[in-house]
Amino acid sequence: MLHIEFVTDLGATVTVDVEGADKLLDVQRQYGRLGWTSGAVPGGGYQFPLDNESDFDWSLIGARKWTNAEGEDMVIHRGLAYRRRELEAVDSRKMKLPAAVKYSRGARGTDPEHVREKADGEFEYVTLAIFRGGKRQDRYAVPGGRAGSGPQQAARPSAPRPQPVAAARPAPVAVVEDETPF
Amino acid sequence: MLHIEFVTDLGATVTVDVEGADKLLDVQRQYGRLGWTSGAVPGGGYQFPLDNESDFDWSLIGARKWTNAEGEDMVIHRGLAYRRRELEAVDSRKMKLPAAVKYSRGARGTDPEHVREKADGEFEYVTLAIFRGGKRQDRYAVPGGRAGSGPQQAARPSAPRPQPVAAARPAPVAVVEDETPF
Amino acid sequence: MLHIEFVTDLGATVTVDVEGADKLLDVQRQYGRLGWTSGAVPGGGYQFPLDNESDFDWSLIGARKWTNAEGEDMVIHRGLAYRRRELEAVDSRKMKLPAAVKYSRGARGTDPEHVREKADGEFEYVTLAIFRGGKRQDRYAVPGGRAGSGPQQAARPSAPRPQPVAAARPAPVAVVEDETPF
Amino acid sequence: MLHIEFVTDLGATVTVDVEGADKLLDVQRQYGRLGWTSGAVPGGGYQFPLDNESDFDWSLIGARKWTNAEGEDMVIHRGLAYRRRELEAVDSRKMKLPAAVKYSRGARGTDPEHVREKADGEFEYVTLAIFRGGKRQDRYAVPGGRAGSGPQQAARPSAPRPQPVAAARPAPVAVVEDETPF
Amino acid sequence: MLHIEFVTDLGATVTVDVEGADKLLDVQRQYGRLGWTSGAVPGGGYQFPLDNESDFDWSLIGARKWTNAEGEDMVIHRGLAYRRRELEAVDSRKMKLPAAVKYSRGARGTDPEHVREKADGEFEYVTLAIFRGGKRQDRYAVPGGRAGSGPQQAARPSAPRPQPVAAARPAPVAVVEDETPF
Repeated sequence: MLHIEFVTDLGATVTVDVEGADKLLDVQRQYGRLGWTSGAVPGGGYQFPLDNESDFDWSLIGARKWTNAEGEDMVIHRGLAYRRRELEAVDSRKMKLPAAVKYSRGARGTDPEHVREKADGEFEYVTLAIFRGGKRQDRYAVPGGRAGSGPQQAARPSAPRPQPVAAARPAPVAVVEDETPF
Repeated sequence: MLHIEFVTDLGATVTVDVEGADKLLDVQRQYGRLGWTSGAVPGGGYQFPLDNESDFDWSLIGARKWTNAEGEDMVIHRGLAYRRRELEAVDSRKMKLPAAVKYSRGARGTDPEHVREKADGEFEYVTLAIFRGGKRQDRYAVPGGRAGSGPQQAARPSAPRPQPVAAARPAPVAVVEDETPF
Repeated sequence: MLHIEFVTDLGATVTVDVEGADKLLDVQRQYGRLGWTSGAVPGGGYQFPLDNESDFDWSLIGARKWTNAEGEDMVIHRGLAYRRRELEAVDSRKMKLPAAVKYSRGARGTDPEHVREKADGEFEYVTLAIFRGGKRQDRYAVPGGRAGSGPQQAARPSAPRPQPVAAARPAPVAVVEDETPF
Repeated sequence: MLHIEFVTDLGATVTVDVEGADKLLDVQRQYGRLGWTSGAVPGGGYQFPLDNESDFDWSLIGARKWTNAEGEDMVIHRGLAYRRRELEAVDSRKMKLPAAVKYSRGARGTDPEHVREKADGEFEYVTLAIFRGGKRQDRYAVPGGRAGSGPQQAARPSAPRPQPVAAARPAPVAVVEDETPF
Repeated sequence: MLHIEFVTDLGATVTVDVEGADKLLDVQRQYGRLGWTSGAVPGGGYQFPLDNESDFDWSLIGARKWTNAEGEDMVIHRGLAYRRRELEAVDSRKMKLPAAVKYSRGARGTDPEHVREKADGEFEYVTLAIFRGGKRQDRYAVPGGRAGSGPQQAARPSAPRPQPVAAARPAPVAVVEDETPF
């Protein structure tokens, strides 16, 4: 017997019994669709393989996809909206980084220090998830398959391109948390 | 089987067994009426749809309504009184924000840093809940229905009005926590 | 079934099963007499009605009464001694506060920031409990009744008196934590 | 039924079921001998009566006695070595303190702020346990009895002596944590 | 019955029932192979005997060995790569330290203060595990035995050698966390 601890959409701490380890992801999907989350977002955000981005099942972490009024791809997690950003691959003498897709938002005054990341100037942001490198894990996908559809697929970043890396960095966005559709 | 973790009115950590997910809100209401709470108030406060404000069941988060000696609408949560404030909609070039109702109190010396929000000058406050935008969730309402009654209904903020936004901001209030009726 | 989480007198984390909600206070009294506590002291201390002070059952929060060598009323909680202080009612233009009884101690170097309260000068103190206003709750009383006896009764603060408020403020006390009788 | 939460010698979080409250110390001894601990060391260290020091059962807190290469009495707790120190009684106009035995170590860079105590100069230390005053509790003793044996007995501090208190204060010791015998 | 609390590879908080204490390490290995971890890494890293380093079963702490593109021995733990470093024994007048093997990485902006250790200059690093001194514990080894194989064995540090200690200290490595193979 397993027991998984959630924070519900109402912020309550609730543990759910699970029959076996093979049922765990089903339970996470079932309650994740209600906006329940388990555990804290890791510092720097969840890390997933890039090849999981196109059909990632956001209910696994209690999140869901959302397209804002400007048609941008966002993800809602615990009532806050995270913007999808593509990070080009970096291949310089100082560092090598494969292409990635990152979901992040501007930091709020009430975010604890250890989740804030610095960008240009005084802007700080918080990352929900980064998809980079790695090997695809089918169990992270939406069951029944939605691969190939959706805006991510078309826009997926590929090999290093000549565009400046800076263009892919998060830019200050006022009150990004207030765009929440709830 | 589910298990919900509460902090009782006496500050004790107590877990209660719940038969199924469909019984969870009933259990939250039952113990919430005693002032028991589950989980921490999210940084920046609970977020609920504005259309839930008029008949919100405060027992869901272990709180209760209270009218102070001056006839103001307050909410008591863990022995502290939060004042009801209406925030006008903002529609400027810099940001767009729908109208909202916020329950907040002045910060106390023992509030941790990550729950304090800055207002004008050196004043800091703490938000319990903000009702803004979104779509009404019937399950958040007082069972049996109290919609339409109460002072909130009459005073509900609507579309942007010419009044200055500043008027809706929290103002410094000395020892707001000491007005607690217990 | 309920489950209450304690920190034992030896500092261990132990959960005790409880048959029903009506047995909870009995279990808190039973283990509280051994010095076991459940949950953290709220920031600013526990809040109880003033009318519960005379026969408050300190075992409910794992504490016990103690009279020190100078005959002063103290309370021992987790090995530290808190001094009983009477706070006069305040009725000025700036604030109104009913009379109260407070149990507090001088801050120690290892107390976390969020429990420290500022007094005059550089002195900092920590509050265990404050009894003020409210309506008596019989379930907080010592079972079988001890009301009317004890030094608290005689010394209970009443309506505003002409004495200066400053006299009731906590004064610096060297090594108050070392007076612990254990 | 009771349930005690341990951190194992491998750092895992493990809860053990216990039949009744009378079996709790047995379980703490059984797992404590493996180096398992329950709960955090209280700020300022565990407090025990001085009369328990000679035959204290360190397995109750997941620690064990150890004599280092220089023949000094140490205690190992979570892989770190604490040195035994005798503190003379203090009887001055400013404070009165009974004699005590303290187990402490120099602070490490990764120790959180709230466990560090200041000594002379910039030196900081961390206390595991202090034995002072109080009344002997037989249940804290090694079962079967070892009282009267061991180096502590001989060296136990007694009434105030003319030696300077400073001699009993912790002195800076480089890499005391690296003396760990494992 | 025992219950072990894990953080899964997806960051969820999950408790697993274990039949008895003798089955605990099996369960830790089983789930650790999936990248599940239990408890926090101790400040300063896990401490193990040096004689366990050659065939240490990293699944016990939810980690796994990995050789990077440059052929260096690394360990992956919670998606971050730790580099293997050999620390020479130190035998000076100021301190004595036996030889050790340390697994560490450069600090990231989101690492909390209490896990950061200072190296030369402004560089900070985080230690996962240090193998030093002590007596081999067979239960920490890979079951079935892999002792004697692998690069560690050949490179194991021995008695003090004339090389400068500084050579063994961690050097700044840009984006070491981005080398994660996932």
